Amino acid sequence: MKALVVVAHGSRRKSSNDEVVQVTEALSQKLPEGFDMVNTGFLELAQPLIPESIQTCIESGATEVHVLPYFLSAGRHVVEDVPAEIDIVAKKYPHVKIKMLTYVGGLPGMQDLMLSALD
Amino acid sequence: MKALVVVAHGSRRKSSNDEVVQVTEALSQKLPEGFDMVNTGFLELAQPLIPESIQTCIESGATEVHVLPYFLSAGRHVVEDVPAEIDIVAKKYPHVKIKMLTYVGGLPGMQDLMLSALD
Repeated sequence: MKALVVVAHGSRRKSSNDEVVQVTEALSQKLPEGFDMVNTGFLELAQPLIPESIQTCIESGATEVHVLPYFLSAGRHVVEDVPAEIDIVAKKYPHVKIKMLTYVGGLPGMQDLMLSALD
Repeated sequence: MKALVVVAHGSRRKSSNDEVVQVTEALSQKLPEGFDMVNTGFLELAQPLIPESIQTCIESGATEVHVLPYFLSAGRHVVEDVPAEIDIVAKKYPHVKIKMLTYVGGLPGMQDLMLSALD
């Protein structure tokens, strides 16, 4: 059973965190075959934190967790902080495959998404 | 002549700012008919700032400027700060149409972009 965990920075503004949760929950209707759950995790300032979010999926039966960084640039959060948070859970569950995906801003489709704003 | 100006927050990390400039410049090859230029502007911490970036396009002949906020959530920057920066230029050039587009995280295609990370 595979899980998708969308991880964002987290904000003091509740509405910004809610927005990430909403976009993530909407994905649950569109997941590819083999994915049975989605969850959201935050680096700071909001709950659940990243390790807790991944752990919830594992406790619900996920044997493979794909972590999508909801960030626009490959700054310190993407390069260092998110991997470090993932590592906390990976050490606790060595039998679970935890894979970090390309951050949103680095996906090849980003340019087309930006151009879609002009429609 | 239309221009697309991608506006981002700006970072102390030069590489993050460069990444925004790169993704914007790559768009120049794919612009829809009628668009002849792209530029990047920053809210803070990097150059050019948003008003200056829009002004450069107008001085180069743009009669219509579409401003795309390169932000993931509709926080204060998107709701208040970017419109205020746009307003500075709009007042100086009342004959130029300056239109703020939907921020990247609010575009309908965002979900499909996120799912593309799973491919």
